[in-house]
Amino acid sequence: MDNLITPRVLKGFRDSLPKSEIQRRQLIGTLENTFRLFGFVPIDTPALEYSEILLGKGGGETEKQIYRFEDHGKRDIALRFDLTVPFARYLANHINELYTPFKRYHIAKVWRGENTQKGRYREFFQCDFDIVGTDNFSSDFEILLLMVKSLNSIDIKNFKIHLSNRGIFNRFLQKLKIEDNYSEILRIVDKLAKIGKEETEKLLKSFADAKSISAIIDYITPENDFVNTLEKITDLSGGKNADTERLYSIKQCINELGLENIFILDPSITRGLDYYTGIVFETYLDNFKHIGSVCSGGRYNNLTSLYTKQVIPGAGASIGLDRLISALDEIHKDKNLKDSTKLLIFCMDNKFTGYYHKLAGIFREKGIETEVYPEKVKLNRQFQFAEKKSIPFAVICGEDEISKGTVTIKDLTTRTNYENLKETDAVNKIKSLTD
Amino acid sequence: MDNLITPRVLKGFRDSLPKSEIQRRQLIGTLENTFRLFGFVPIDTPALEYSEILLGKGGGETEKQIYRFEDHGKRDIALRFDLTVPFARYLANHINELYTPFKRYHIAKVWRGENTQKGRYREFFQCDFDIVGTDNFSSDFEILLLMVKSLNSIDIKNFKIHLSNRGIFNRFLQKLKIEDNYSEILRIVDKLAKIGKEETEKLLKSFADAKSISAIIDYITPENDFVNTLEKITDLSGGKNADTERLYSIKQCINELGLENIFILDPSITRGLDYYTGIVFETYLDNFKHIGSVCSGGRYNNLTSLYTKQVIPGAGASIGLDRLISALDEIHKDKNLKDSTKLLIFCMDNKFTGYYHKLAGIFREKGIETEVYPEKVKLNRQFQFAEKKSIPFAVICGEDEISKGTVTIKDLTTRTNYENLKETDAVNKIKSLTD
Repeated sequence: MDNLITPRVLKGFRDSLPKSEIQRRQLIGTLENTFRLFGFVPIDTPALEYSEILLGKGGGETEKQIYRFEDHGKRDIALRFDLTVPFARYLANHINELYTPFKRYHIAKVWRGENTQKGRYREFFQCDFDIVGTDNFSSDFEILLLMVKSLNSIDIKNFKIHLSNRGIFNRFLQKLKIEDNYSEILRIVDKLAKIGKEETEKLLKSFADAKSISAIIDYITPENDFVNTLEKITDLSGGKNADTERLYSIKQCINELGLENIFILDPSITRGLDYYTGIVFETYLDNFKHIGSVCSGGRYNNLTSLYTKQVIPGAGASIGLDRLISALDEIHKDKNLKDSTKLLIFCMDNKFTGYYHKLAGIFREKGIETEVYPEKVKLNRQFQFAEKKSIPFAVICGEDEISKGTVTIKDLTTRTNYENLKETDAVNKIKSLTD
Repeated sequence: MDNLITPRVLKGFRDSLPKSEIQRRQLIGTLENTFRLFGFVPIDTPALEYSEILLGKGGGETEKQIYRFEDHGKRDIALRFDLTVPFARYLANHINELYTPFKRYHIAKVWRGENTQKGRYREFFQCDFDIVGTDNFSSDFEILLLMVKSLNSIDIKNFKIHLSNRGIFNRFLQKLKIEDNYSEILRIVDKLAKIGKEETEKLLKSFADAKSISAIIDYITPENDFVNTLEKITDLSGGKNADTERLYSIKQCINELGLENIFILDPSITRGLDYYTGIVFETYLDNFKHIGSVCSGGRYNNLTSLYTKQVIPGAGASIGLDRLISALDEIHKDKNLKDSTKLLIFCMDNKFTGYYHKLAGIFREKGIETEVYPEKVKLNRQFQFAEKKSIPFAVICGEDEISKGTVTIKDLTTRTNYENLKETDAVNKIKSLTD
């Protein structure tokens, strides 16, 4: 046949080969365990939604990136571009069937037709966790604590969480009487780390006079420690208020749990997105700052207002799985990722096929991943297969062994043979060699 | 705000609430463990592919159901409608980076714009496992064995796997000299269970004369046991050949592993899909036949021929997760599905927030899912929350307890209090009460 269709994936999309898929699934599994330990429960929503649900009133950047089309029933539909907007819709639908405080996590794919030149992908996983139905510092702190514990659970120990509070920034701008340009100003400030101080000042000129600009720059420049910074922005925003007090309460929890070294009060953190109303935060790995924030989020108290009059406050964070995986790859670059099969039963003769499958069952019952080579080919090919799949042990079992009711275990790394083993001894041998 | 957007999901799509999402994730986790024990490894492919990849030369029914559109770059793209076609494309791309026999599983969503009246969904999970790069009875049997073990692992014990071999049927039609209508005939025969014998005969009239029809009906009617049926179809297809011998070898493995009661040789099983070339099978739960086959598949030796000249034979099966979940719901209908949090730390005073979060950490370290109620509200509301979330135990810890360094554990079912417990005693108490 000559009319072959070229096998290829779309630009910005990726196949996942077994080794990286195993790694991702392990990572997700570990994160899930941590979420569950905190009482967070999983949910799921459809990949496709009505476009009006996803786009809300906005549009803008999102509209340009979204995969949107008409279905067979002429509905205007689109693929979700994040897990936050579908969650807001989900809450409007289901909050009364659930309970509050409701704590959920959601790990799933999202799609954005982004420019792929920046190393971005058009299909990627998001991993979100949120507490909704309550507005208080305990939930804010719990999200921060879970960020720390999640990263710790996947062996990430060295990182800083940069924290701020939009409420205070808003009060500060009100005091300067430039709060009408709140959204624009916080989006400029959010870019500080990327574009530098001078460029930030230049951009601010459209929205503030020289004196205000200088005040903004002062506001967003952290002092040498959390409390000093908090005192400064408290002053600059007109003195103590509910938002500054909340940061003090959060700081007290941070201290009580001995997490002082992880959290930095950094007023330049604003998060570009409109829906945040309280604390906002970003997480940077000490040795991988260049990959950007690996976990970000904040408090949003009006997220569901597009879909329901019921007020559902919330706070949450999103883990950047792809960035974390690339950092972990770098951290563990000496470790060889493995397909985890432990044992290969060689095929010495096709007539023993049933015997081999039965034997494999004995090892599997003891939790040893075991496979059966499916046909008699030269032993060399079977060895090569084991090597390619990084299988460390083989069972060799031919006419002789079967008549004696024994097997030979071969350590494929050292080439050592352990002969004349009864089944249970063989299981124990593998167990002792892999411990 | 009055211009609310109606929160709703698309017809044929579903939100997943925590209890069912927990159930599905547990089910998938258990299946994955079983696959991994057999040496199957996970892969992933993009949800979106070029339409030509997914549609191949076909079209037809698939074309009508597929979600297909043009992206921002004017590419003709579509959402995958199964995991088999993307796997064929994946193999054409990657087989040379991998190894053979290659055993993979893939559990992911697929989308079909199907008629939803039949109780079908437009978004659902598929769960496929395959062995490729080898064509032999050991792999055929391994797929069948893994079907049995997968179902067993999720506590499904009573089922029958109906098995057949397309190769023998094809030889039989050749003998009747009506093999030109192979595809049409096998699609009609495939419907036998659904439409009955008379209707089957009627439909066959377009493709075969009365004598051939009667031969077909004879062929597809099983005898009283596997070997008798196999002898009959061996005769009807012109005597022993590679395909009948393969069924004998598979039967021998079935017997060696003591699985005789599960497998039925049922020549009416043909599977509608064109790509099967060898064994084909369907699985019916003894007490839930009406939900249809819960695990189906077969051998396909030319699946990748659309994309590559390299011949990559394979065999595999697909588990119908949604059907299984509905059967399991029925089987376990007396069991109350639970969000699994074990322990709720009541909030007696907001000033103890840090203390509560620290205390929670002690229980979590011992693997006890623990949550902290985030604010001081009436105890009644905190009790109600625990009840709604089916949390069985609470920690009560106010001024008194904190000054003494103890906690009170409350069994929320029996309302029993266990007072004056030090932290480690509290952990042990929960452990002993939940064992």
